[in-house]
Amino acid sequence: MKISLDPNTWAMPSPVWIVGTYNKEGKPNVMTAAWGGICNSRPPSVYVSLREATYSHGNIMERKAYTVSIPGDKYVKEADYIGIASGRDHDKLKETGLTPIDSDLVDAPYVDEFPLVIECKVVRVEKLGLHTMFVGEIVGIRADEDALTNGRPDLQKIRPILFSAGDRGYHSVGHRLTDPFTQKTPTKQVP
Amino acid sequence: MKISLDPNTWAMPSPVWIVGTYNKEGKPNVMTAAWGGICNSRPPSVYVSLREATYSHGNIMERKAYTVSIPGDKYVKEADYIGIASGRDHDKLKETGLTPIDSDLVDAPYVDEFPLVIECKVVRVEKLGLHTMFVGEIVGIRADEDALTNGRPDLQKIRPILFSAGDRGYHSVGHRLTDPFTQKTPTKQVP
Repeated sequence: MKISLDPNTWAMPSPVWIVGTYNKEGKPNVMTAAWGGICNSRPPSVYVSLREATYSHGNIMERKAYTVSIPGDKYVKEADYIGIASGRDHDKLKETGLTPIDSDLVDAPYVDEFPLVIECKVVRVEKLGLHTMFVGEIVGIRADEDALTNGRPDLQKIRPILFSAGDRGYHSVGHRLTDPFTQKTPTKQVP
Repeated sequence: MKISLDPNTWAMPSPVWIVGTYNKEGKPNVMTAAWGGICNSRPPSVYVSLREATYSHGNIMERKAYTVSIPGDKYVKEADYIGIASGRDHDKLKETGLTPIDSDLVDAPYVDEFPLVIECKVVRVEKLGLHTMFVGEIVGIRADEDALTNGRPDLQKIRPILFSAGDRGYHSVGHRLTDPFTQKTPTKQVP
């Protein structure tokens, strides 16, 4: 018998992604988003959902582009700070000592220190309520060489941070459990 | 200097969620989705993105409802199987020995054995390409008592599975890193 709880954002886990944008003057800004994920395989696409009140929301509406830089868990304090302070009155990159790099594929900067970067062009904007969802087609990926295994990003090397609103915690990743798509069946899923 | 990679679904981490639906005859079906996440705080909402070819896609289009049952990592083999076999020619619940329970809030069943359940009414359907995104307003949450701490779902007790398309792996969660929103700043983020 399960316990019934009121509706809340308690699905899990959520990622901890650093969204890179330019403001009107071309100044790089970063914010932390936990409402994000992959939403389409062809064309490969992600989304981030941001409150309209955020500085980054306006930046994305203007430039129709953003990057997602994925920090390893040694950057959890920086990620937390970047999720709290606003780019309206803080240069969070300078304050945290992180380095913005201009993407040559999209009109947005990414964070050099973070091992995996997703470069996105906004293809859809959906106002859902408090949050607006920005669906971005992935037009490029950049990764540190030591974040790759056989040319593909490796979660165990990148060690992304997890967020859970239920317990209000950041969590690390653990060990590799198993390979997917290994059960013998008639239908193979493209996730 | 980062290495450039072709566009692919290599953002991380992704969740491993079991989507519960009824078919036309009211028979419960489950499928595994890794393209899912929280996309809005008010009203609290999640999405799952499914290929149009899946059985569950048709079920959701018909009933405009689904549940997300979140398995702990001891169920990784069941989750993998449920992601491969199709409900068109398999009763995956019976085959895996899992128990469907009728939600009394939405027109969909959930999995009794999994510690956390999100019950959703579909409020938006977005065809993005290969995948269709089903945005669901969360109308209820159910959890096992031993999955909660102070009445809230606790990731360390639930131990959800992570998926990463880059390394084609399922991974476990690790340890709690820190509390979020603890840096002293002028702007507090509602994530």
